Amino acid sequence: MNDYYPWLALAHILPNKAALCRSLIEKFSSPDKVFASSFEDLCSVDGITPAIAWEIKSFRHPSADVEDEIKRIKDTGIKLIHFNHRDYPERLKNIYDPPLYFYMNGSITPEDTHALAVVGSRSPTPYGRKVSEMLSAELSSAGFTIVSGMARGIDSAAHRTALKTGGRSIAVLGCGADIAYPRENENLMREITGNGAIISEFPIGTRPDKKNFPQRNRIISGLSLGVIVVEAAEKSGSLITARFAMEQGREIFAVPGNINSPLSKGANNLIQQGAKAVTSVNDILEEFEQLLTLRPKHGINSMPVKPDSMSDEEKDIYKTLTLEPKHINQVITECGIETRRVIQLLLNLELNGRIEQLPGGCYVRSALNP
Amino acid sequence: MNDYYPWLALAHILPNKAALCRSLIEKFSSPDKVFASSFEDLCSVDGITPAIAWEIKSFRHPSADVEDEIKRIKDTGIKLIHFNHRDYPERLKNIYDPPLYFYMNGSITPEDTHALAVVGSRSPTPYGRKVSEMLSAELSSAGFTIVSGMARGIDSAAHRTALKTGGRSIAVLGCGADIAYPRENENLMREITGNGAIISEFPIGTRPDKKNFPQRNRIISGLSLGVIVVEAAEKSGSLITARFAMEQGREIFAVPGNINSPLSKGANNLIQQGAKAVTSVNDILEEFEQLLTLRPKHGINSMPVKPDSMSDEEKDIYKTLTLEPKHINQVITECGIETRRVIQLLLNLELNGRIEQLPGGCYVRSALNP
Repeated sequence: MNDYYPWLALAHILPNKAALCRSLIEKFSSPDKVFASSFEDLCSVDGITPAIAWEIKSFRHPSADVEDEIKRIKDTGIKLIHFNHRDYPERLKNIYDPPLYFYMNGSITPEDTHALAVVGSRSPTPYGRKVSEMLSAELSSAGFTIVSGMARGIDSAAHRTALKTGGRSIAVLGCGADIAYPRENENLMREITGNGAIISEFPIGTRPDKKNFPQRNRIISGLSLGVIVVEAAEKSGSLITARFAMEQGREIFAVPGNINSPLSKGANNLIQQGAKAVTSVNDILEEFEQLLTLRPKHGINSMPVKPDSMSDEEKDIYKTLTLEPKHINQVITECGIETRRVIQLLLNLELNGRIEQLPGGCYVRSALNP
Repeated sequence: MNDYYPWLALAHILPNKAALCRSLIEKFSSPDKVFASSFEDLCSVDGITPAIAWEIKSFRHPSADVEDEIKRIKDTGIKLIHFNHRDYPERLKNIYDPPLYFYMNGSITPEDTHALAVVGSRSPTPYGRKVSEMLSAELSSAGFTIVSGMARGIDSAAHRTALKTGGRSIAVLGCGADIAYPRENENLMREITGNGAIISEFPIGTRPDKKNFPQRNRIISGLSLGVIVVEAAEKSGSLITARFAMEQGREIFAVPGNINSPLSKGANNLIQQGAKAVTSVNDILEEFEQLLTLRPKHGINSMPVKPDSMSDEEKDIYKTLTLEPKHINQVITECGIETRRVIQLLLNLELNGRIEQLPGGCYVRSALNP
């Protein structure tokens, strides 16, 4: 019997009940053992009624449906990554409702644990497209795998840029992992397969269906350390992905845009709700600094930015500061410069990254540019 | 002796030492009484050295300089609003370094206590100009006096729009209150005088000087409940105003913009530092809701926005919620709808203003649209 058989059979008996399937796996360690368990043991699992236990015990081997699915898997060369598979990403296991298994064309490697999702509108403005390409290229250069949904617009631009930069990319589809949708992405799909993975929890051959897309969005965020929303209208799929990211405890980043652009509404609203506003890739990288130190790849250039040289007055202010917080009144007293001028000079120094302001009107030298 | 005389004389003896002047006023209640005090009493004030006390005691009346200044005040019809004057705004008194007096052409009325500053670039993009006009018009209609610096660009647009909407405006200048700068604002200046005030702490006839502008910015924020930064480059004057607003404990609002627009850099950075991102006037008004209830003027329309009608599924979710927080898992259990769909429906309801999300995955009905 094929390895995949019991996984597919279990899902076949309990369609759309991944949580129940996982409870069974948790209890009996594998679907094989679920099928080998006694009626009484099955009924002891929370949510397994006698009727369900009966269905499991009476499941006929071989099942034509399951056999057909296995044949399709063999024919397409697509892999089934089940919950116990060593390639099933740990991070995805930790979401509220992880898939029991997913189909994969390509491969997931250990470096894909450093993954970030870039999502956005299907019909972005030139601004949105440019920004998503810029961020994807820089994140990819910094060693991040770019995850997205391979939709038209921002998604495709993000995948394409990641590959062009020599990085990896993962596309999570709302149709079968064998279906190029939209059609124009056939080549892109092939390229992703060679430098990442095409992933879907829907059976091979599943046609694209609008209702599948919100569901797949939880996997986009589930695979990622954070989600970056570039351009997104109100009530768009990207906001659903951001919402999943929030539920999953992932970082949410949004790129601000003009308030009269309908496509910036979603991202601006996210910022109002607490998403981190991204004005350059450094705003994203600084959240993962520790990871990057552990595993540098192409090397991140110009971070932190080299500060400008200081004016004499700025030096006078700077000299009064140390790495210990000092109140502005103390700074004014020590440097002997007029109050208003001190405030202005402190602002300059802060903008140059030389010093940092702390709550309560205190200042310190910046640890990054000591 | 003219009422203004002792104020001008005191400032003349202690130039650029407004704090010391205020200490003297605080101790002796008025400049008249300062001049009438004994040498010993003067020396008892913190910061008054015997040398300074001697200068005060030996000040020659009449002083030609002071007399000249009084003549200029009379000739121009400009008023001197000193610290003890009933028109000196209470809010301005509470800043770190309030002026001992300022010159005023026009008038400050009790309704000017509801003042908001709109500041920004001298050479805005069409986007920045449009947004500043929109916000100024809406804030003015809601009864706020618009404060700004009468510079070219955003400042002038803000004043002009406020007056056009039938509202009031206050311009704080970095030159004398009699000087139209930039020249093109001569008409605007006259209009402001009729429906607000032109204010300056610099003597009549003072030519515009770059070094005066940061200093006057503290008065712009000092007069206002909050400062709205529309478009501002890095290291611009508007950011200095925002910094003063922060030091003064005023609200700071910033309008997000495209990250590749140099003029949106300042506002986007302010948002990253904690300024409230403004995508519509309601984001500003909601911070002052209580004030507006106390003193409605033209009436604010469509706040809160009338929610869309709900779908059947949305109603099912909505019914499970009350004004008591309920965890999402409980909502899922009660409504019997699939998890992923519930998340999507909750998002819709939140976007429509029907419900609110609380920390920890809990939801409540929105108090605004019960």
